[in-house]
Amino acid sequence: MTHPPLDYSAAGVDYNKIDPLKLLAQRSASATGANLAAHGVAEVAGSRGESAYVMEIDGRFIASITECLGTKALVADAVRAISGRTHYDTIAQDTIAMAVNDLITVGATPLSVHAYWAAGGSDWFADEERMHDLVEGWRKACDVCKVSWGGGETPALAGVVEAGRIDLAASSVGIVPSRERLTLGEKMGNGDAIVLLASSGIHANGVSLARKLVERLPDGYASLLPDGRTYGESLLDPTTLYVPVTEALFAAGIVPHYIANITGHGWRKLMRHAGEFTYRIHTLPDVPPVLRFMQEHAGIDDHEAYGSLNMGAGFALYVAKEQAEEVARIARGLGVAAWVAGRVEAGAKSVVIEPLGVTYAADELHVRA
Amino acid sequence: MTHPPLDYSAAGVDYNKIDPLKLLAQRSASATGANLAAHGVAEVAGSRGESAYVMEIDGRFIASITECLGTKALVADAVRAISGRTHYDTIAQDTIAMAVNDLITVGATPLSVHAYWAAGGSDWFADEERMHDLVEGWRKACDVCKVSWGGGETPALAGVVEAGRIDLAASSVGIVPSRERLTLGEKMGNGDAIVLLASSGIHANGVSLARKLVERLPDGYASLLPDGRTYGESLLDPTTLYVPVTEALFAAGIVPHYIANITGHGWRKLMRHAGEFTYRIHTLPDVPPVLRFMQEHAGIDDHEAYGSLNMGAGFALYVAKEQAEEVARIARGLGVAAWVAGRVEAGAKSVVIEPLGVTYAADELHVRA
Repeated sequence: MTHPPLDYSAAGVDYNKIDPLKLLAQRSASATGANLAAHGVAEVAGSRGESAYVMEIDGRFIASITECLGTKALVADAVRAISGRTHYDTIAQDTIAMAVNDLITVGATPLSVHAYWAAGGSDWFADEERMHDLVEGWRKACDVCKVSWGGGETPALAGVVEAGRIDLAASSVGIVPSRERLTLGEKMGNGDAIVLLASSGIHANGVSLARKLVERLPDGYASLLPDGRTYGESLLDPTTLYVPVTEALFAAGIVPHYIANITGHGWRKLMRHAGEFTYRIHTLPDVPPVLRFMQEHAGIDDHEAYGSLNMGAGFALYVAKEQAEEVARIARGLGVAAWVAGRVEAGAKSVVIEPLGVTYAADELHVRA
Repeated sequence: MTHPPLDYSAAGVDYNKIDPLKLLAQRSASATGANLAAHGVAEVAGSRGESAYVMEIDGRFIASITECLGTKALVADAVRAISGRTHYDTIAQDTIAMAVNDLITVGATPLSVHAYWAAGGSDWFADEERMHDLVEGWRKACDVCKVSWGGGETPALAGVVEAGRIDLAASSVGIVPSRERLTLGEKMGNGDAIVLLASSGIHANGVSLARKLVERLPDGYASLLPDGRTYGESLLDPTTLYVPVTEALFAAGIVPHYIANITGHGWRKLMRHAGEFTYRIHTLPDVPPVLRFMQEHAGIDDHEAYGSLNMGAGFALYVAKEQAEEVARIARGLGVAAWVAGRVEAGAKSVVIEPLGVTYAADELHVRA
């Protein structure tokens, strides 16, 4: 390996530039919560800084969110030339997953999704095959999550969005039927189990790195992985929709103490909870071939790989120890591999991945004001 | 005038290319409404095709929407060089207005707003002046509408969004406290009055045309209007937020029979209601200087101008005839000029602007499947 390791800064994403805006925006946003009193509505203060916003309306809780796909559609555009497929059916699922997988972390049942498809020009919508794939994939993902596709926006934004490209996002509204169903972390405690749910691949996190890596590969997206599939098509495996799992848990009377969607910052997200806990991992999920391939060819160590990619764990459920095996069994019954992978301990905020000898300290994750 | 008239097709927006996708998406979306039954929730079928989506949850109604600003930020970027101001405070208000002014058309009280700020790169967020303006404008608009800024997404999307640009959108969730408060048009009838509320200028509709026009103006955005202001700064007058007006109407016990937000398609939107009515306008609002200037310099006639721009009317309330003057008085009391401008008549679907001799037939507006 003669290349220097690739990291996020090299891949064009600089969190140092984004974070000051995020903090300023979070503080200003927080100040507006008082506006709800005029309507007899209250915000659930504990949802500020979590992955979805929750308001209490007459004893019920409405959760909402807007999430972006990111740059994964650029991969689909490039791979289409190799595969002959548009891949926008799976891109649609990715986009919806970004929204609903975050929404369910507060304990919500997603009800509706809005589409945001902003193209670089009207021409984008004239490609019938791609258009049908996008619509059909969107509809199917809604059906899997049992949500209603409530509407959307399909602007043509020449001069804002690059010609031939599309900026995809989704917003979602859900309901939490009672205060007891909120999973904002109040019940998290020493001895809780960490159940990790399998990812299907890269999901939509680490895509800038994945694209940057192509420049180093002689065969680019057509590079073959050990399992015989191409790098490009493997990257485009659609993000797992975790809604059926959380719905099945609620139906079984199991309410997790906390939930984390493992996206940006990879396994550092395991310490997303605001409290002071050590997250000790003793069992590693299988690593999808595409992520192992990325780690090897980018030349990054485990600390960097697990700190930025999902490395096989797409979703984390923090549950009472005695419910852990049942939680994993329910997920597996729905076709989602699951591992009782670790435990929550009172102690300095950190993530300790024992089998790898990797630790992330509290100051390696900044997600709240 | 040696130039041919500018129209939307010349300005790069081709609705013929967008509409087939919209129809396909609308039909697929409609099919997903049945998913709500699993949650004991029902969609309000009459909201399909309207400007916001409404679900009934235990006798209350939750409305939601996602809306895009469009390309108006490109005007701000260009005018900054002339004015020395970023104008992103007013751009923020425009973006929120796109969402809440649509949300209130179904009778909703907006509760929360999510921000979607997708930049062409991390650098966008490093411009502190612009960043503060955007955040501060967003917060102020939330305060005017008494909504909570619930969160948002600030991705850096190099390769999707143009370098140095930002794709701005907003989603909003609101509540309609009872079925009687829904303004989906069931009560619209012969003899109802049309009350038009003043726009503040171009709002965010017709911006592609406004930008195209700059190429014809020797002084570009610095061109002076008859009122002595520049074309560029006039274009950036922020979109009126109509939330205080609808809230005041509800507080006074007035529920409009129907509401239309006048955006794309200009006054053709006056026949947005699904029924068979003629909308006869007898009184014209004052035309903002910037729109009169655009009409003159683009060389377009009244049929084209009123059919694509708001021409001084940003919002239309269809109310019982005997409530019309009171509705206008309430709006004026909040600083929004208002006119009892026309009436609804049983008859062939069309908009008739009598003072101009302009008529739009039903086939000149396609907004629903």
